[in-house]
Amino acid sequence: MNSLTTRTQVAIIGAGPAGLTLSHLLAARGIDSVVVETRDRAAIESTIRAGVLEQGTVDLLTGTGVDTRVRTEGARHDGVEFRFGGRGHRIDFAGLVGRSVWLYPQHEVLKDLIATRLAAGADLRFGVSDVVPVGVETDSPAVHFTDAQGRRVELRCDVVAGCDGSAGVSRTALPEDRRVDHFRTYPFGWFGILAEAPPSSPELVYAHSDRGFALISTRTPDVQRMYFQCAPDEDPSAWSDARIWDELQARVAGDGFALKEGSIFQRGVIPMRSYVCDPMRFGRLMLAGDAAHTVPPTGAKGLNLAVADVIVLARVLEEFLASGEERRLDSYGPTALRRVWRAQHFSWWMTSMLHTPPEATPFDLQRQLGELDMVTSSRAGAAYLAEAYTGWPIDD
Amino acid sequence: MNSLTTRTQVAIIGAGPAGLTLSHLLAARGIDSVVVETRDRAAIESTIRAGVLEQGTVDLLTGTGVDTRVRTEGARHDGVEFRFGGRGHRIDFAGLVGRSVWLYPQHEVLKDLIATRLAAGADLRFGVSDVVPVGVETDSPAVHFTDAQGRRVELRCDVVAGCDGSAGVSRTALPEDRRVDHFRTYPFGWFGILAEAPPSSPELVYAHSDRGFALISTRTPDVQRMYFQCAPDEDPSAWSDARIWDELQARVAGDGFALKEGSIFQRGVIPMRSYVCDPMRFGRLMLAGDAAHTVPPTGAKGLNLAVADVIVLARVLEEFLASGEERRLDSYGPTALRRVWRAQHFSWWMTSMLHTPPEATPFDLQRQLGELDMVTSSRAGAAYLAEAYTGWPIDD
Repeated sequence: MNSLTTRTQVAIIGAGPAGLTLSHLLAARGIDSVVVETRDRAAIESTIRAGVLEQGTVDLLTGTGVDTRVRTEGARHDGVEFRFGGRGHRIDFAGLVGRSVWLYPQHEVLKDLIATRLAAGADLRFGVSDVVPVGVETDSPAVHFTDAQGRRVELRCDVVAGCDGSAGVSRTALPEDRRVDHFRTYPFGWFGILAEAPPSSPELVYAHSDRGFALISTRTPDVQRMYFQCAPDEDPSAWSDARIWDELQARVAGDGFALKEGSIFQRGVIPMRSYVCDPMRFGRLMLAGDAAHTVPPTGAKGLNLAVADVIVLARVLEEFLASGEERRLDSYGPTALRRVWRAQHFSWWMTSMLHTPPEATPFDLQRQLGELDMVTSSRAGAAYLAEAYTGWPIDD
Repeated sequence: MNSLTTRTQVAIIGAGPAGLTLSHLLAARGIDSVVVETRDRAAIESTIRAGVLEQGTVDLLTGTGVDTRVRTEGARHDGVEFRFGGRGHRIDFAGLVGRSVWLYPQHEVLKDLIATRLAAGADLRFGVSDVVPVGVETDSPAVHFTDAQGRRVELRCDVVAGCDGSAGVSRTALPEDRRVDHFRTYPFGWFGILAEAPPSSPELVYAHSDRGFALISTRTPDVQRMYFQCAPDEDPSAWSDARIWDELQARVAGDGFALKEGSIFQRGVIPMRSYVCDPMRFGRLMLAGDAAHTVPPTGAKGLNLAVADVIVLARVLEEFLASGEERRLDSYGPTALRRVWRAQHFSWWMTSMLHTPPEATPFDLQRQLGELDMVTSSRAGAAYLAEAYTGWPIDD
């Protein structure tokens, strides 16, 4: 059996938004990294995920030399519509805070990052298996894995970056008695569909109704993405297309709004939950992105938080590697977690403002309408929401 | 047995903030009213209640000729302090929204209103009993009561204004099948004390801690009002003074903050609950103030909502009495309820942001800290809070 030993400065587990962006940012600082990823490249580049990119995420990609198509193929959105009480109320991001978001699917971001990294000669190992971070409490950590050719590899490094998502091995490498798992499960899910139809609105529509939440989003001029609040254990196959459209129409009705229907070609139910791992560091293992935290999709913060994490992490790693001072690693978690908890709050706020909990009373529904009225009729309230939605400045 | 019949345009049940202010505003429009109140004047003027007056409430009192001492004896507060994570964070009302609040106890407002109304020759009947609104679904309603001299009185009128609070007869005159009662009970109460002590802070302090909420308020330079979150059925007599101070100190600790202690001379537990009656009208009976809605004290909105209600009601009654058109009464409830539901949301928001629910998880506590960080570090967020706390413009 072949066995290889190799060395890098930062071993990155996972070629998602956190891992690839980290590799890119480290390279710009002259720091060597190797990325190991269990999926193959084609799978990563074809797994379609929604993407709402904050202004700061777009600025990071375009400002650090990523060969990205976000500004040409992505769609800039200068606001969103909140619908409630049968009427639409626009939140004017650009006018309120001078910032925007871009709709650009996550897998397109990954394609851009992979192409950019490979063009720069990066060492990306796709299709690996049996990944294990080892010795992370020593000063000579490593990542062991089996590469795509079946060879066992020992990747020695100074630091391991755990960027392998919520189901990856990195998080579980933090012993349970050394971390606090902060969980929240929402008592509903999102029933999502993809439909061949024209867009119904130029911007995303977040709808509150006494039947529950709905989100009207867009993928391309011909394909639309829509969601509506459902039971967490809803069976998507129990819904006829007609029933789906009736439900969506009922939730966005009023004020002349016309939801354009079409052929539904994909459907599924996604769970709504929050998670934060504290600390985000265990010795020389640093968690970033979904490996450290997950948010419900309402605030569109997942990918953006991953990018914000690794902006901080790249700086901290540079300081550590230049000085050799272990304590330099200490500031990463607290700095990243401040943003994470704001984002968790924002995601909870958007969720609780717009969804109808199963146990909601008439008081709760009227209070929600009072809140939606307060936010949308106040310039300060709308700006507070807009600055969170478009993304706070990154604490670098 | 003596029996008297008298007549006015508007029979007002209750000499609290809503009833007295309404009587005053109607007089300014040349509309005659009689106020009937079960308590005697001395009781009203000596029942000490907290009072945080919105900018608009102060403007109303001073701008319509109430002989009020609010600007001389009240204390203008240009901000409040939020304490969390062991540090204070000021919300600068004046700097953010150009508005302030005044600390001026409710019974002082009532003294001012009573003196002003009596000087103007108003008909205020204190110490009445057996008050009953009658015929409110006809065009000749009345209020029957027994006056302080024991005489039975029939007060005929065009409209009855029910301003007799949450335990008054007015609300119950709306048949249950003709109204929706929106209730919310919070799973905690406020343990309140009055203490002979100097102020600990020039402004109100709203404190979040992992032991629960605390509020440091002031009454006079020598008397301080403090509250801390407790169980709804907490027994105040089970607490020694030392234990009360220890609990308050623990909840505001940090950052050099020194809570000044003193002799506790009053203590009690107040419930936290919300209520809205919809509609606020039943024929010729119009509810205003606490008769129609109650809020938890966190947002300091109770008295201010009562004043906002009767500003709208005075205008609507003038239109009705001038035109004789019944439909003119229709706009009162919807107009008043828009503000009521915003205030209910604001009160819920302040409560849920600052209190620790009994079932709170570590996630919930960290999310609250994320929210407090978001609000206090954002100019827009702080302004959104400030404009609600100091009071929205009145939809007159």
